[in-house]
This record gives sequence, structure tokens and C-alpha cells, in this order.
Amino acid sequence: MESKYTLGMIGLGTMGRNLLLNMADNGFAVTGYDKDPNMIEKLKQDGSKHNLTAYSSLEDFIASLELPRRIMLLVPAGPIVDSVIKELEPLLEKGDMIIDSGNSHFTDTSRRAIELSDIGIHFFGMGISGGEEGARFGPSIMPGGDKTAYSNMKEILEAVSAKVNGDPCVAYIGPGASGHFVKMVHNGIEYSMMQLLAESYDIMKNALDYSNEEIYSVFEKWNNGRLQSFLLEVTRDIFKVKDDKTNNFLLDMIKDEAKSKGTGKWTSQVSMDLQLPIPTINEAVSTRDLSKYKSLRVALSKVYAQDNTLAENKEQFIIELEQALYFSVITSYAQGLHLLWQASISYKYELQLHEIAQIWRGGCIIRAEFLEDIYQAYKKQPDLEHLYADAGVQEKMKEILPGMRSVVTHALQSGLAIPAFASALTYFDSLRTERMPSNLIQAQRDFFGAHRFERTDAEGTFHAIWNPINA
Amino acid sequence: MESKYTLGMIGLGTMGRNLLLNMADNGFAVTGYDKDPNMIEKLKQDGSKHNLTAYSSLEDFIASLELPRRIMLLVPAGPIVDSVIKELEPLLEKGDMIIDSGNSHFTDTSRRAIELSDIGIHFFGMGISGGEEGARFGPSIMPGGDKTAYSNMKEILEAVSAKVNGDPCVAYIGPGASGHFVKMVHNGIEYSMMQLLAESYDIMKNALDYSNEEIYSVFEKWNNGRLQSFLLEVTRDIFKVKDDKTNNFLLDMIKDEAKSKGTGKWTSQVSMDLQLPIPTINEAVSTRDLSKYKSLRVALSKVYAQDNTLAENKEQFIIELEQALYFSVITSYAQGLHLLWQASISYKYELQLHEIAQIWRGGCIIRAEFLEDIYQAYKKQPDLEHLYADAGVQEKMKEILPGMRSVVTHALQSGLAIPAFASALTYFDSLRTERMPSNLIQAQRDFFGAHRFERTDAEGTFHAIWNPINA
Repeated sequence: MESKYTLGMIGLGTMGRNLLLNMADNGFAVTGYDKDPNMIEKLKQDGSKHNLTAYSSLEDFIASLELPRRIMLLVPAGPIVDSVIKELEPLLEKGDMIIDSGNSHFTDTSRRAIELSDIGIHFFGMGISGGEEGARFGPSIMPGGDKTAYSNMKEILEAVSAKVNGDPCVAYIGPGASGHFVKMVHNGIEYSMMQLLAESYDIMKNALDYSNEEIYSVFEKWNNGRLQSFLLEVTRDIFKVKDDKTNNFLLDMIKDEAKSKGTGKWTSQVSMDLQLPIPTINEAVSTRDLSKYKSLRVALSKVYAQDNTLAENKEQFIIELEQALYFSVITSYAQGLHLLWQASISYKYELQLHEIAQIWRGGCIIRAEFLEDIYQAYKKQPDLEHLYADAGVQEKMKEILPGMRSVVTHALQSGLAIPAFASALTYFDSLRTERMPSNLIQAQRDFFGAHRFERTDAEGTFHAIWNPINA
Repeated sequence: MESKYTLGMIGLGTMGRNLLLNMADNGFAVTGYDKDPNMIEKLKQDGSKHNLTAYSSLEDFIASLELPRRIMLLVPAGPIVDSVIKELEPLLEKGDMIIDSGNSHFTDTSRRAIELSDIGIHFFGMGISGGEEGARFGPSIMPGGDKTAYSNMKEILEAVSAKVNGDPCVAYIGPGASGHFVKMVHNGIEYSMMQLLAESYDIMKNALDYSNEEIYSVFEKWNNGRLQSFLLEVTRDIFKVKDDKTNNFLLDMIKDEAKSKGTGKWTSQVSMDLQLPIPTINEAVSTRDLSKYKSLRVALSKVYAQDNTLAENKEQFIIELEQALYFSVITSYAQGLHLLWQASISYKYELQLHEIAQIWRGGCIIRAEFLEDIYQAYKKQPDLEHLYADAGVQEKMKEILPGMRSVVTHALQSGLAIPAFASALTYFDSLRTERMPSNLIQAQRDFFGAHRFERTDAEGTFHAIWNPINA
């Protein structure tokens, strides 16, 4: 009898192909399936040194897998996932596993997991971060689903994942759609960090009048310190790249209209359903959207023109800008982790936040020096509600807060748009307010809508006659 | 043959009862239905001077209405609306109208309108604003649905609505769920204005050390000027009301944890689907949510304590604060109207923004002096993309911008949390930026995810090899 494959990949685009090659590199007998013969050809080319095969018949592909089957999907999120599952269903047996490794919305994953569990199939939603490179040589992996079934995948995933100090950047996340949920929040944090880097660039370029070369040097210097991160590296390197066509910097030839695929938006929308505020991530999403209103911006820029140059001591300002960025990066992680903390309660995900910090330390887009601090904070206090409440983080925050305030107020005074920086500061200031003015909002709602209010000195809800003439 | 009723109301709670009494006041023969006999009793009591009746049998209620029937629902949004419709369906005839006047999500309204049109029933989603008082004596009304069917309702709605300069505060909004959509955005603007008033209160109380009496006087003075609005009146009056129990100001006895019913959240979530940024409304939603994390705030307030007192010239600061509030209120309306502008395109709502401004001038919660300016702006230019682009608004914005910047930067320096004010300023500064740093975000996405970018000098999308060693 022919020996069978350990895992089969459906969808041999860049991500699926690279992940499959990664598995083959690690000695697993794997195979692929794609409807498109070009994709099969591409896999055979890229994997010519591996003993790799792929099928264009789904039946043959399924028959080639050992039991219980491990079938991974890397196809576009949305209805395509459902249609692939529909094709698979009649071919599978109880105990088989389907692992959806795309960026599916976690509510779709919940639904699919329930539908498939009815017929005895284990459905896993698995987040993968690291882009093309990560998939090929070691991504960060966030799998959620049935814990027992996971043991069947563990060896493969640990082998192909990124490693930090020898530890694999993969861990069982939790039940249900928790894997995709955590990946979604990872992307929300990514949006926020990218926006903060863009605003830092804007400040250096337009308030301090720095050249691209000078900006490169600043980012390089920062990346050699506590701000070290993959996104900062990427950002730094962008400032070296010239355009073949014009010999300008390529960055200067790119339209200032950011695109997005929706995972940041999902994070913001879900956070609102959970009533857990993540305003800096929201601003990152909003600002990408705002950038698209180019003709409106051009028209308004003429009407409301303002010189943005800051007459500050530039060297001192750069020191403070590093502090502001650090403050805001900490805040981005803090908001994302707070959302995970809440989701773990609301959706019973049983998340281990220190493990999530651990697997984000390598392979993924938001990997950063600071994740070591986060890991240590949650390892020490697994039920920590908010990163700001960690003693180590507090020490850093207090040190950099004056620089943060200085940068935000100076940039706002200069007329530069810094939505993410400003929201990080107002978020921090709100969260450290013992008594907010939200009592007024309760009073207003009771005044005009009889929505009732709560008192500080008694349980229950109350209604008042607010007309002052009667009072 | 017995004479029949012109309109029947299902749901005789405060809003339904008051609206029915309003119709009766205006000479319409109306009747009600409620499952709860207490509600029927209450209607008869409140309407003892009217010739009012109500039914506890749905069949009798339906039989009492003239054809085509006008049936209005004022029941809690959500599944109850569906179950009422289900009960009604077998009793109705082609051409009958169901008018849902609750705060239903507009996507539910779209679905119901399509389902009911299949069986020849006209389903209207209708927003009503004005609270209890408005319903009783004249609300602002936003009906959307089939235009021809609307002519059957017009007379009643115009009679019961608020009037401004003799004009009724009701107009046909547009097809489909546009009525509920516009009401939702109205509420989003309301959230934003309430948050801005709360932050103004916070600044006066904690940065300027004003007493409640002093704050009352400031709000009163502002309300006598260009900031005149229903919400400012309400807010002002709150500062006069004493608590019977303690003889403190009632406001001071209210918990600082704001509640919400979800329409603000929906506005933010939908704006993200439409990729139309409304960051100040988002911050209002987030800040209500944040206020609920009371124990976390108390803990963090001890760690990160800061004196918020501002050593400014208080009188000068109050002048600037009025400018900042005006700037931010304009911005709240501008964001909401921009969202309507986009929704009108995306959902083919054919909205007439000047008519919407016109009907918001009276009866509703966000009625304000400034709506006259908005009305004039859109009347002059019905296709105006953004309120900031109107010449009249520009003149005001330029006058108050220095005060706005001063307040925001001083408050941030003092450590006071002003999320809505700060976001209004960063929104303004973003929108007046000809060249945003969003080119960097395109570059980053192409660098790590091969998501491609657009160029300023060529059509199409491009991918670059970003590794600087190869560049």
C-alpha cells in the first residue's frame, strides 16, 4: 500500500505554497491541491528540490492523506471558504481536521466550527502572521479549536513556526474562533503601529524639515534601542529605496492614499460590540479611510493653509519623539491586549495572554523588543487587566510621559495631523481619571430621554425631574 | 357602518402613547393596541379628554382601521419588531403600510422592507427624535420608504411634527432604510455633542476649578449665543438641580459611568464599513465605554496622578473654550453629514442634505442655532461634499481655530482627558492636509505583504523589491 501524506494544503498561492515548502523543509510528507494548474506548476518549480506533489483532483488529493486527515485551507476569506468546505464535506470522515489559515472573520469561524462539529469534523481557525517570508521560513501561528484535535497538529506547527530563544512561536490559543480572533487583534495593533510610524515620519518631514536620509538615520537609531521591531525595520529600510524610473526616493512617488483589507476595521467594530475602547486602533483605521478623500483634502488644504514648521531644538525634539512613539506603541499593545482580556471573558476563550505575547515575539508583523516586557508582565500576573497596571510598564511610562505630552502638544500647535499620537494620550489620560465627567452624560440622558441614572451612594437606577424650576 | 380609524399604534409605552395623543390633539381619529392592559389603561387616562380608544385584540384593532391601513410600531427594536410583523402579516391587505418608528438598525429595516414588499405591504422605517416631550408636542421625524405610499402619511406627520418658522420638521427622506439611517447618524452626532459638553464641564471643573454655579453661568452665557442648542440648554439646567436626599448638586451624586443603547456604536461601525471617517463620534462612543472601567481607572489614577489645574487667565480661557466647543460642534455635524453624503451614494438613498438640516432645526435632540447655517450651506450647494468646504463655515472656522488649538494643547498639557476635542482637531488637520504620510503605509504593506502600491505619476498598482541591499 502506497504511503500517505501527513497534511494537504488547499490553495497554492504565495502563502499556501510557502507554508507547504516550509513543512517539506521540516521533513513532513505534504501535498497540495489547487484548481488552477498554474499554481500546481509553480509549487513543483519552487519545490523542485523537495519530494513534493500536488493534485488537481480533489478526490485524489483527499484519498492521498493519512487518517485522521489534516487539511489546511489558504484560500481568500469569505464565501470561498464556505464553498471549499461544501466540496470537502462528502469526502471526509469523522475525526478529520480542516484548518482555515486565512484571515477569516472570527464569527464565520465560529459558525463553521459548529456546523462541522455536527458531522464530526474538527474545524480550526488559525491565524498566521509573517507575510510571505514568514510563511516560508517561520511565521507566528495562532490556532484555535478543539484542544484534543490540536495535539494532532502540534508537531507540524511547532516545527514550521518561528523560534525565539528556541521556543516555537505557536501555542494552542483556545476554543472556538479564538485563533482568528487573536490574529484579528494582532492586525489591529499592526494598523496602529503603522499609523504611528507614518505620523512620526510626517513630523520629521514637515515639522522638522528632515530629508529622507535624515529620517532613515533616526529610524535606524531608534531601531537599535528599545523600539526595535520588525515594522520599524521595514519603515527604516523604505527610506533607502530609490525608484528605478525617476531616481527619486520610491516613497515620494507613492500616492498618499492608504489601502486596507478589513482586519483593522473588524477589530474596531468588534471592540465596540464588546464595549472595550481601543481608540488608537480606531484612529489608525479612520486615518487610512480619511486618506482616500484626496480631492477634498487638496481643496481644503488651500483654504485652511498653515505652516507646520516647528522652531524647536530639533535634536531635543527627536529625543522626545522617540519617547512619544514608545509611549504610543506601548499603548497600542495595551489596547489590543485589553481587548483580548475582555474577549476571553465574553467569549470564554480562556486566553493565556503571556503565551500570546510569547508567540508574537517572533515571526509576526508586530514582533518587537517590547513584547518581551509584555510577556514578562503577563507571566508574572496572568490575570492582569491592563498593561498600564504592570509595575515595569509604569516605570517606563512615567519616564516617557513628559516627552509624549511635549510632542503631542507641539505637533498640534503646529497644525500637523497626529490622530494616533493624540488619541494615545487622551486614552491614557482618560484611563487614569478617577472621576470622569461621564456623570453628566448620565444626567443628560435621564433629562431628555428618561433613561435613568446610577447614584454613587445607592444601588439601583433613578429618574429625576430635571426641570430646574421644579427643583 | 361604523367609522374607521385613520391610524393605529402598536406599542403604547411612553413614546407610542405620547405620539398617539399628539395625533389626537391634531384632530386625527387614531387608536392603539398593546398586549399589556396596563398600557391601554394608561392611554385612556392620559387621553381622557380625547375621544381615544385602544384594543387588546389585534384582530379587532386591525379591523378598526380604514384602508389602506396605517399601522405604526413603537416597540423595542430587534426581534420584537419581527414577531409583531409576523402576527400582522395574515391580517393585512395589499397596500397597507407598516411604519416602524423605533430605533431599528437600518439593515433590519432594509430586510423587512424587502420581505414585506413581496406581499404588497409598504414598510417604512421612520426615525423620531425629541424624547418624551417631542413625541407629545412635536418631534423631528425622518421617514424613509416608498415615496408614493408616503403621501398617505404626509398629512398626519406634518401635523404632529415640530415646526420652525412654520415649516414642519418632517420630510420624506428617501427610499429603503434611509429614514432609520438618518436617525442613526443623528444619534451619532448627539453622542459627540454630549461628550464635548462633558469635556467642557471637566475642563471648567478640574482645570479652572469652577463651581457648579459658575459652570451654570458659563453654559447659560454660551447658550445665549451661537452655541444655542437643546443639548446645551439641558446641560446648563442640570447644573441647577439639587438632590432631595443630600442637598448636594444631583450631578455630583451620579456615577461617572455612562450608559448607551447602541445607536452611536452603530454609527461608528457603519462608518467603518463605508470607509468614511467620523473619529469624533468614535471617540464619544469609546469614551462612554471607557468610563465603565471604573475600578481600573481608580487604580491607575493613583499610579499616574497629576495635578490638572491650569494657571491660565480664566476669563480668556473661557472665551477660547467657547470657540473650541463651537469648532468641535461644527466638526461633529460635519462628520455626520459627510457620512450621510457617502451613504446617499453607497446606498442610493437620494438624500437631500438641506432638507435633513431643515427638519433637524426643531423637535430633535441635536436641534441648534448652527443647523440654520448647515441648512443654508446645503441649500446653496446641494451636492456639497463636506461642511468645511462651505464659505460661510470656513469664515467661522478660521476665526475660532486659534482658540481651539489653544484649548486642546493646554488641556493636554495639563493631563486632562479630552478625547473628543483632540480628535476634532486632528480630524480637521488631517482633512486639510494635501499630502498625508499615508504613502508610507502603502510602502509598508507592499514591503511585508506584497499588497502593491499606487504611484503619483502612473495609473495601476505596482510592487517593488524593498530590500535596500538590492535597491
